[in-house]
Amino acid sequence: MTMTKINFLNSSEKDFNLKLSQLLKISSQDDNSIEKIVTSILLDIQTIGDKALLQYTNKFDRISIKNASELEIPKSKWKEALDSISREQKKSLEIAAERIQEYHNHQISRTWEYTEKDGTILGQKITPIDKVGLYVPGGKAAYPSSVLMNAIPAKVAGVSELIMVSPTPDGYMNPLVLAAAFMSKVDRIFTIGGAQAVGALAYGTNTIPKVDKIVGPGNAYVAYAKKKVFGTVGIDMVAGPSEILIICDGKTPAEWIAMDLFSQAEHDELAQSILLSPDANFIKQVEESIKKLLPKMPRSDIITKSLYNRGALILVKDLEEACIIANTIAPEHLEISTENPDELLKFINNAGAIFMGKYTSESLGDYCAGPNHVLPTSQTSRFSSPLGVYDFQKRSSLIKISQQGAINLGKVASELALGEGLQAHAASAQYRVNGKISW
Amino acid sequence: MTMTKINFLNSSEKDFNLKLSQLLKISSQDDNSIEKIVTSILLDIQTIGDKALLQYTNKFDRISIKNASELEIPKSKWKEALDSISREQKKSLEIAAERIQEYHNHQISRTWEYTEKDGTILGQKITPIDKVGLYVPGGKAAYPSSVLMNAIPAKVAGVSELIMVSPTPDGYMNPLVLAAAFMSKVDRIFTIGGAQAVGALAYGTNTIPKVDKIVGPGNAYVAYAKKKVFGTVGIDMVAGPSEILIICDGKTPAEWIAMDLFSQAEHDELAQSILLSPDANFIKQVEESIKKLLPKMPRSDIITKSLYNRGALILVKDLEEACIIANTIAPEHLEISTENPDELLKFINNAGAIFMGKYTSESLGDYCAGPNHVLPTSQTSRFSSPLGVYDFQKRSSLIKISQQGAINLGKVASELALGEGLQAHAASAQYRVNGKISW
Repeated sequence: MTMTKINFLNSSEKDFNLKLSQLLKISSQDDNSIEKIVTSILLDIQTIGDKALLQYTNKFDRISIKNASELEIPKSKWKEALDSISREQKKSLEIAAERIQEYHNHQISRTWEYTEKDGTILGQKITPIDKVGLYVPGGKAAYPSSVLMNAIPAKVAGVSELIMVSPTPDGYMNPLVLAAAFMSKVDRIFTIGGAQAVGALAYGTNTIPKVDKIVGPGNAYVAYAKKKVFGTVGIDMVAGPSEILIICDGKTPAEWIAMDLFSQAEHDELAQSILLSPDANFIKQVEESIKKLLPKMPRSDIITKSLYNRGALILVKDLEEACIIANTIAPEHLEISTENPDELLKFINNAGAIFMGKYTSESLGDYCAGPNHVLPTSQTSRFSSPLGVYDFQKRSSLIKISQQGAINLGKVASELALGEGLQAHAASAQYRVNGKISW
Repeated sequence: MTMTKINFLNSSEKDFNLKLSQLLKISSQDDNSIEKIVTSILLDIQTIGDKALLQYTNKFDRISIKNASELEIPKSKWKEALDSISREQKKSLEIAAERIQEYHNHQISRTWEYTEKDGTILGQKITPIDKVGLYVPGGKAAYPSSVLMNAIPAKVAGVSELIMVSPTPDGYMNPLVLAAAFMSKVDRIFTIGGAQAVGALAYGTNTIPKVDKIVGPGNAYVAYAKKKVFGTVGIDMVAGPSEILIICDGKTPAEWIAMDLFSQAEHDELAQSILLSPDANFIKQVEESIKKLLPKMPRSDIITKSLYNRGALILVKDLEEACIIANTIAPEHLEISTENPDELLKFINNAGAIFMGKYTSESLGDYCAGPNHVLPTSQTSRFSSPLGVYDFQKRSSLIKISQQGAINLGKVASELALGEGLQAHAASAQYRVNGKISW
């Protein structure tokens, strides 16, 4: 049932915390039928490989491919797609790609080491993940920006083989998606989707290379399949509905704030848009702007459902209290739309991305500011981070003990190992102290 | 069935790859009964909190506590434990703690930002995770080194509340564990374990604080409970059996290498110890050393089962081929026990920790070299890293667009948003360009 207006909460009311936690709650999507279907698809891919992949692809995407080799799109077609889009689109994609690249260059971790007095060397070696699979949803919800945001950090990290998969329902592939893949230096593209694509990337088939990690958004089947293959391969995260939290001092035009709330709500009926402001009058203005602008929006149906069922306008005591509430909500996107956002930044601990000042709409960050738009949802910014170059690099500890170091450390390790009842550990250390076992 | 001797493989044989992949395979532990028990324990904790926690704790640990407040061990008891251990043990723990702290200080990430020509500021803010739960197994397998390895990086990261849980079967708590907790600045300790402890940390009860992330090793119940609460809280990793892979040029004493293989095998019957060497004669010496040393080992039963069922001695063409094989195995621990380990390091991509040179036994790294001993197992070093300070920090993107920046970027974002059919995104950007919507 859709409510008839947006929720209004007041942080001074007694039951505020309860109401807030109810607002944030999402009914969990443990769907048994999805689990069953995905489990059986994954098993088929694992056992009969390409044969199952072809069957599922033809069935779910309503196409009829005979040979698995036809599943790959040759690079010449990507280039054609790039040449087919408008000059403005191409230019915009190029600017976005450049800025994303520039930002992510700052995230590269490098190997480090240090030498101790006795010559012992300790450090950490950083290497890129070798092969990565990138899932890109097909059909209408095909987002070229998603290709850039996932592929560019992988390539900045040095991933040697970036395999993109994207289904072509009824044979359709969005040329903007192919153009974005060409621009962001994806290595190969296969027209497969759903749990069957995730399985093919995780286990490998004759046609699809087995990868080390799978990233990218997808529907409930893709999400469950990713969870299921986790361990065999790495995965990025399993994203929930998108969220925006706006802290506003009332100095940003109300219409801008209303539209920022819309921009999250238009994604999905389950998306969540919340405003925190200490200015009751401003909140009223935003509510009026919502009413005025809503009918003009092409996606007003989705926006209405999202905003009225899951959105809220919240009156807070002051901006500092707003920050405390923001840390509890731990939003995916946080706009600090105030005159002096820097003053508030120090109070913010939990947020995927922080958009500061009235000119920084979330939509600028979604496409082209530079930072990644793949962000932790559902309060997970309490413990996780935006997708980044660090998700495509891994670390190995480096330990090179000198002869003197082994004498010093061997005694310590031996003492602790015997305390834990692990005598082979102790003996192995003792051999390095004086060549013999002494327990 | 235990084999009667250790496996021998030769990389030049035709079916080597098949044999190797069979050796690495572990029968998956999807145990339905564990799943059912854990699911019901977690539900009880979620619904009746402390009451369920007390019931399960009393039952599984064979104790009889009446009030949940008795589950907390006051700090005075930790101090008593520290004073009760031997001077050598205390000194060894102190040296280990200091070295672990020193190494992990190198892993701290710091907030960064850069300013563009038009005044736009981009960056990333680094913050510690607020509350972390640390699981420490109880009873016989209580490892103080595990406390140091998990607690110190959390505290280096700046975690404000580090809650340790450890069961006390029959009321027993290892004083070394309490001493290590005191030394590594854990904040609170509760005597709970199993799935009920994981649930209490994930959901919170009246007595146990709800945390943001849970780390630390545990049995199959703990591992499954961690998987199950993932999303509600972060988790570190779900570790498989421990592994060592040794590359040796034949210049390290054979007994040392045999003992290094033992030191992994003594953990667990499923632990895996493998040697790669191009020197057939040396492999024979190692095999003889194994036979000679095995009867002397207090844990010879476990070592024998592990070594004969899951271990292997592998003859390779040369050291470079050994590195290629090592990358496929992607071991948790890799010893490069050669005269010039640096020459081989450049070939190694996948390994949790790399121990270089004959003096660097894995056991030194397990306890006191400095790097973490919590490492990716079961070939997951292809895509994951040792536990580190970075596991207790998280990032938030920082975006502060200037007025001029919003004009430049607004056009790009608007173009791309309209291409994706997201008009509110476009409008939100356009407002920042010239204050009005233009589609």
